[in-house]
Amino acid sequence: MKTLITGGTVVNATGRARADVLIDGEKIAAVLAPGSSLLGFDVAAHVDVVVDATGKYVIPGGIDAHTHMEMPFGGTFASDTFETGTVAAAWGGTTTIVDFVVQYPGQNPLDQYALWHDKAAGRCAVDYGFHQILSDIQAPSLDAMDELVAEGVTSFKVFTAYKGVFLSDDGQILTAMQRAAANGAMVMGHAENGSVIDVLVQQALARGETAPIYHGLTRPWQAEEEATHRLIMLAHLTGAPLYVVHVSAKQAVEQIAAARGRGQNVFGETCPQYLYLSLEEQLGAPGFEGAKWVCSTPLRSRAEGHQEHMWKALRTNDLQVVSTDHCPFCMKDQKELGRGDFSKIPNGIGSVEHRMDLLYQGVVTGEISLERWVELCCVTPARMFGMYGQKGVIAPGADGDVVVYDPNGRTSIGMGKTHHMNMDYSAWEGFEIDGHVDTVISRGTVLVDDGEFRGRVGHGRYLKRGLSQYLV
Amino acid sequence: MKTLITGGTVVNATGRARADVLIDGEKIAAVLAPGSSLLGFDVAAHVDVVVDATGKYVIPGGIDAHTHMEMPFGGTFASDTFETGTVAAAWGGTTTIVDFVVQYPGQNPLDQYALWHDKAAGRCAVDYGFHQILSDIQAPSLDAMDELVAEGVTSFKVFTAYKGVFLSDDGQILTAMQRAAANGAMVMGHAENGSVIDVLVQQALARGETAPIYHGLTRPWQAEEEATHRLIMLAHLTGAPLYVVHVSAKQAVEQIAAARGRGQNVFGETCPQYLYLSLEEQLGAPGFEGAKWVCSTPLRSRAEGHQEHMWKALRTNDLQVVSTDHCPFCMKDQKELGRGDFSKIPNGIGSVEHRMDLLYQGVVTGEISLERWVELCCVTPARMFGMYGQKGVIAPGADGDVVVYDPNGRTSIGMGKTHHMNMDYSAWEGFEIDGHVDTVISRGTVLVDDGEFRGRVGHGRYLKRGLSQYLV
Amino acid sequence: MKTLITGGTVVNATGRARADVLIDGEKIAAVLAPGSSLLGFDVAAHVDVVVDATGKYVIPGGIDAHTHMEMPFGGTFASDTFETGTVAAAWGGTTTIVDFVVQYPGQNPLDQYALWHDKAAGRCAVDYGFHQILSDIQAPSLDAMDELVAEGVTSFKVFTAYKGVFLSDDGQILTAMQRAAANGAMVMGHAENGSVIDVLVQQALARGETAPIYHGLTRPWQAEEEATHRLIMLAHLTGAPLYVVHVSAKQAVEQIAAARGRGQNVFGETCPQYLYLSLEEQLGAPGFEGAKWVCSTPLRSRAEGHQEHMWKALRTNDLQVVSTDHCPFCMKDQKELGRGDFSKIPNGIGSVEHRMDLLYQGVVTGEISLERWVELCCVTPARMFGMYGQKGVIAPGADGDVVVYDPNGRTSIGMGKTHHMNMDYSAWEGFEIDGHVDTVISRGTVLVDDGEFRGRVGHGRYLKRGLSQYLV
Amino acid sequence: MKTLITGGTVVNATGRARADVLIDGEKIAAVLAPGSSLLGFDVAAHVDVVVDATGKYVIPGGIDAHTHMEMPFGGTFASDTFETGTVAAAWGGTTTIVDFVVQYPGQNPLDQYALWHDKAAGRCAVDYGFHQILSDIQAPSLDAMDELVAEGVTSFKVFTAYKGVFLSDDGQILTAMQRAAANGAMVMGHAENGSVIDVLVQQALARGETAPIYHGLTRPWQAEEEATHRLIMLAHLTGAPLYVVHVSAKQAVEQIAAARGRGQNVFGETCPQYLYLSLEEQLGAPGFEGAKWVCSTPLRSRAEGHQEHMWKALRTNDLQVVSTDHCPFCMKDQKELGRGDFSKIPNGIGSVEHRMDLLYQGVVTGEISLERWVELCCVTPARMFGMYGQKGVIAPGADGDVVVYDPNGRTSIGMGKTHHMNMDYSAWEGFEIDGHVDTVISRGTVLVDDGEFRGRVGHGRYLKRGLSQYLV
Repeated sequence: MKTLITGGTVVNATGRARADVLIDGEKIAAVLAPGSSLLGFDVAAHVDVVVDATGKYVIPGGIDAHTHMEMPFGGTFASDTFETGTVAAAWGGTTTIVDFVVQYPGQNPLDQYALWHDKAAGRCAVDYGFHQILSDIQAPSLDAMDELVAEGVTSFKVFTAYKGVFLSDDGQILTAMQRAAANGAMVMGHAENGSVIDVLVQQALARGETAPIYHGLTRPWQAEEEATHRLIMLAHLTGAPLYVVHVSAKQAVEQIAAARGRGQNVFGETCPQYLYLSLEEQLGAPGFEGAKWVCSTPLRSRAEGHQEHMWKALRTNDLQVVSTDHCPFCMKDQKELGRGDFSKIPNGIGSVEHRMDLLYQGVVTGEISLERWVELCCVTPARMFGMYGQKGVIAPGADGDVVVYDPNGRTSIGMGKTHHMNMDYSAWEGFEIDGHVDTVISRGTVLVDDGEFRGRVGHGRYLKRGLSQYLV
Repeated sequence: MKTLITGGTVVNATGRARADVLIDGEKIAAVLAPGSSLLGFDVAAHVDVVVDATGKYVIPGGIDAHTHMEMPFGGTFASDTFETGTVAAAWGGTTTIVDFVVQYPGQNPLDQYALWHDKAAGRCAVDYGFHQILSDIQAPSLDAMDELVAEGVTSFKVFTAYKGVFLSDDGQILTAMQRAAANGAMVMGHAENGSVIDVLVQQALARGETAPIYHGLTRPWQAEEEATHRLIMLAHLTGAPLYVVHVSAKQAVEQIAAARGRGQNVFGETCPQYLYLSLEEQLGAPGFEGAKWVCSTPLRSRAEGHQEHMWKALRTNDLQVVSTDHCPFCMKDQKELGRGDFSKIPNGIGSVEHRMDLLYQGVVTGEISLERWVELCCVTPARMFGMYGQKGVIAPGADGDVVVYDPNGRTSIGMGKTHHMNMDYSAWEGFEIDGHVDTVISRGTVLVDDGEFRGRVGHGRYLKRGLSQYLV
Repeated sequence: MKTLITGGTVVNATGRARADVLIDGEKIAAVLAPGSSLLGFDVAAHVDVVVDATGKYVIPGGIDAHTHMEMPFGGTFASDTFETGTVAAAWGGTTTIVDFVVQYPGQNPLDQYALWHDKAAGRCAVDYGFHQILSDIQAPSLDAMDELVAEGVTSFKVFTAYKGVFLSDDGQILTAMQRAAANGAMVMGHAENGSVIDVLVQQALARGETAPIYHGLTRPWQAEEEATHRLIMLAHLTGAPLYVVHVSAKQAVEQIAAARGRGQNVFGETCPQYLYLSLEEQLGAPGFEGAKWVCSTPLRSRAEGHQEHMWKALRTNDLQVVSTDHCPFCMKDQKELGRGDFSKIPNGIGSVEHRMDLLYQGVVTGEISLERWVELCCVTPARMFGMYGQKGVIAPGADGDVVVYDPNGRTSIGMGKTHHMNMDYSAWEGFEIDGHVDTVISRGTVLVDDGEFRGRVGHGRYLKRGLSQYLV
Repeated sequence: MKTLITGGTVVNATGRARADVLIDGEKIAAVLAPGSSLLGFDVAAHVDVVVDATGKYVIPGGIDAHTHMEMPFGGTFASDTFETGTVAAAWGGTTTIVDFVVQYPGQNPLDQYALWHDKAAGRCAVDYGFHQILSDIQAPSLDAMDELVAEGVTSFKVFTAYKGVFLSDDGQILTAMQRAAANGAMVMGHAENGSVIDVLVQQALARGETAPIYHGLTRPWQAEEEATHRLIMLAHLTGAPLYVVHVSAKQAVEQIAAARGRGQNVFGETCPQYLYLSLEEQLGAPGFEGAKWVCSTPLRSRAEGHQEHMWKALRTNDLQVVSTDHCPFCMKDQKELGRGDFSKIPNGIGSVEHRMDLLYQGVVTGEISLERWVELCCVTPARMFGMYGQKGVIAPGADGDVVVYDPNGRTSIGMGKTHHMNMDYSAWEGFEIDGHVDTVISRGTVLVDDGEFRGRVGHGRYLKRGLSQYLV
């Protein structure tokens, strides 16, 4: 299959230019000056498909570096399977996800890694890689880290919260970081002080504070800032690189910025929910409605200015990546578990389908530049997690993962409209985007075009990643 | 003329990949997967020249955004003409310079702009653009700013030092910044407190302190930090973007970093001399030897750690560009004017030929990554000064400015070896580089290859620049 | 004259305690455990006057370290003479002022110093010292600094604003600081970038913006922050101690705090107007009303939070002193000069009478502690300016300057009520204070008691000050 | 007993003055102008003792707010009993100690409090108060906090290190801080990340690194900085005041300074060992010698500049108190437990006798002012821990705790010379002080004079403290 994308403006992290893109088989074969002839050779005449991208942006396929498809949590599972979740991703212009293999205490990471392969193999519409969650950091887990790096799992997530489930103590985290410093892997950190939060939650419940907003009020910014700083110091001590996931508090950003200022390999990710949604408006919605937006870290107070600060941090590169932390749960049978007790509401929001659009809206409103959009959503995720070259770039030799984005299109988010995730509600209901994902190509195969899904489950392949290409 | 560069590794700011580069006429026509065939079309068979870059880096031609060819200063002229200086630039892999049109008090910027065109036209071996120095900021100069932007001079330099020559007072700088905020131009600032320095110089001379090192000791870091902060505040007040030239003091970097942290469009440049040379070693050399390294801002104390901090700032993006501030003077008849009075030594160092090599050595020693080298020397200068797309990138439609750099080559800097600048000494005598500029191509024309200069004076064209593409 | 103050709570900077205070002649003779007997000796029986301070605070007489009595400025004079101003000071519990001797360009500081002695001698109701303003910093002024220190004028004020009147350039300020570093004097700085302000003022007037609020809008915080930082750097370079007068912008405070954090002898003063009043409310009052509050630095925006930050800085000791910058002008014939042109409104507010009350209200509202009130208004001014021991403390050997303050009293500020300053309006009209200055004693003489002025013009003496006792 | 101290210079936190001090019974009765007559009454003739302090400093008795007399730890006891320790304190000019009641897991704080009273009652040579260590923070301990505050124990120490012994988790610390915020108590924090340290210690031992210096190398500054920041955030969350004990890392100071800058009630203490001694010189002494200086937090690297930074922090008030953390162990039978395994060396250094001298030497060398010496060692400890008025000040009504210090005296520290602590070595052997504690008076009783101990065991009384008087 040979595809030529013509007439568009190719955008990368540093600039944009009119160019045609030729995909031959699964790979990009050439980036060409616009027009059909190369030294007299009529390129368009030799391809199977010509995609007309005139007036549109041609960008690398989106990379969502933080998803939790069908994740087991608290007795239920995230409602998107690898199948439904990756189809939704494709609809939204995301052609690669990196999902988390879960180790719970007592489990072996390698077994879990094999299990996750079983779950995903043959069921994904887009390519997928794995991070490994470490929840039982002892010698076997540490040794497994080396083996997993060889398997292309080059990033390991540790938690400072969720006692008895995910939480590791600081000494355990230290040993994981020591290992990462040795084998070159990235340490990812969920940064919230779980010990403090557990007390606050119990105190709130004891006072009869059971509504969804208390989920946010019992996870104050201090708990995030503190754990962020703590992980940074452990990283400093060991020399390991650190990637802080789902940063939502401006004070946590300041800790990351300070670390980066002294030259430490510390990075931060935020998610669309922390850019647009707030404690007051969403989490504090009447009745049980707020449960839709229960996630951790929680939505933050708009009055305190966190959202505005997140956008600024994206501009100043104090934060480097926008992922979704896609972890959807339906209201029915899932979120409803927490009626009368916010602590029982499954934590998670689904956004894998809308990330590219939601961030593009930031280009429209002037929060970020067009190039920065591509950098945050495509280029840096690839570099951060060792995929660049194959993913995250439109260049010869790279996978033919391309999105044609129409700045004159329009996207209305909501149930019954653009919603393909397996959720019975949308966290983004009513959001309007001044742009549109027109065509989505993965390894040379058109997944989405003309408002139709043309891909297939099973197209997606496991992506063996290398070490981070973003370290200083 | 059609040229194909094959087998090399193309490096840009975000990554590297094996690819062939096809230049057709003056422009890059395509970037191709390695190998001779595109959809069965034998590209190599249809070109005039094939450059074998196997095992080598293929990078955008270097951009030196800060040069002063044949600049009139203190009764003499910088010793490189546009001819000798741009030939030397080409030798070193720099295919674009941005030189400074000088306005002295009483002169009209537009007249000076025309004069500089006269000086440069037909005499340059590489392409050249102009910044405009403003030294008489009154209504005519402010109005000229708008006209110059239309001419492609989109950056204006103001000085806080050199009373009676370049210095403007803060109110004048304010008005220039207001105009820049309105017309989109970049304000460049020479940041040293001249009023303070003038006093310190007079006091030193009165004490009989006449040796070259007193040039440095009378321009303390506080004078640089102060003026840097001052310009940043004026920029904050007006909304103008600010680019601080030749940053050498770590405390000045901290001011720039703080401004950037709050989201201000403030940028900083350093030069190879501030990365490698020091007050103690070079400026403090015995006798009058130190005169070779008299430049402003001055070389800083190594004991205070400025050099190390500059490298760090290049890694953390607190500084974004490495230029040379190329402003050479010969020892004989020029530097010698300051025997017995350091204040009469013409200020300047010549490095236009060695910037790419000197910074590559930072890759070798692990100070910066290969991608960061390209970003600092090629990509960001282009974006910063409105040239990106035409310059600073290897992509279809861009000018065919390409350097083939051999990481296995070796370059010995010094008189009689690699020195083509019109100076009777080298500020870099004895520096050894673990790399080599093999081939230099400008707009499709080979300037340097096989250790020979094959370009011609007059090849270089004036480059009409757009507004900065680096603003947040 | 022997006076015993009994039953009160003596408050100093570090704590409070019940104690009696005995003044014998002009000096405090003893601080005694409460009760009439010392080793059997009946102290009360041997004094002339017993002041019953039961239930009240007994504090050192207030020190206002920044006043401008009858200052010549812009063709008029500050409306309070040394006579009216010091009587008003006494009414308000201030028993010492430090006023500014003015040097205008071309004048000799020593001549001016003699002139100010002539103005003040025999006309003051409370003790007075002098700072020296330097507006013509050349060799004669520098030499005069040494002589003035010997005369007890140990602090010298420089200006970065008011071109042609007070402004010195940075090189001049540098030389004054060098001299101060040598002779131990304090350098005081009026920190506003006058060059920038002059441009903004002319631009505003040219746009027809003539109302009083434009006085504030043309003196933005950046102009204050910038000059504050600049003076701090000059002080750093020379080693001179620096005291920044009338700090009103929170960003200027941050510069002072940063300097103090690195151990520099940098200090800051604020004034009641910057704690209570704002750009929006007072300076922006309808019509020409705002002229009442035209002073420099200007009142700042409450929306930006400066006032709140000033209180915080007083708590954290980022600011150390509260003075008034007392420089009153009447509306009639004086402020009115600026109708139709805000730049012609004489700059100044009168507060010398109300400082102790206004700051005490901060104790009532919880902004500062009782001890901090005494420290800011009495103790630190004395230490800062070389008077401690004689002034600023209730201890044997100190001058008998004592205020009995009633925390159960009440003070209504306003014309026809408590107003004794020579002004035809009050900048503090309508302010209500939950406390009252009951008794004011200066060198053993009761100046105010029972709501009556019992002092006399001519009681006040010149105070020869030593070097600062507050340096680290 | 009536005592008159004549001819000396009374020094407090804000200044100094010549004055006589009269003690009548246990209390200071008056501070008098020098000379024998008060209104004709010959004071000297009516007292029992006249102490001639001519040419000497008269200061409040020293307060050591951090001692561990006969503390049970690791199967042994700190070698000074309340008797030997308080006698040594008296010798060194310290007339008040605040010692720590220890709660180990499973113990009730109130029982322990009673037990400590039993230990101390009738055995102390100087007055003593108690802090309470909390190591089992559950409901009974929280409730006990309120009762203890009523008993005059108004400060509670929590630990982030020593698992199984002292360590509380963050949630527990949170609840203690919540209680403190409610009842007004001070929370004291031992700030080291024990979880990290435990891992580093085990790793070091596994590598055969057993010498005393590894005690320091396994407790890196990051572990202190991290825990300091963590406690600060918990304090921020709860509103509790926080006092960080034995700060030794400059980065920890920076965290405290930042908290104070934002107006938080956060305080820091350092100890003489962190001002004078270092990892390289003492802890790294040959053989097992370094064991003498094993304490936690550990001595820090001089190359990293911590000692210099501590002195600076004392000047800038980023640190407010100097205590000793007096916790002596003999080499024989105690320190020797750790031969071959540094982790078994009892942690502690003895300095209660030398604090006033060691800090006075900082006055001699210009590190701090005379007034700051008194503030750090006497005044602020009293204010910080609710004793001011009774202790920490020379004023009528205060306890007659006075030290006459001779700036012309000389003190040689070392075994067989000035050593009265129950230790078989001195951590300060060979230190020479340019000053001397001449006379020590406690509640009107002379404890030390003429080089003789004249006090008695049992003189010291329990001191019921109030809430902190140092909060903003």
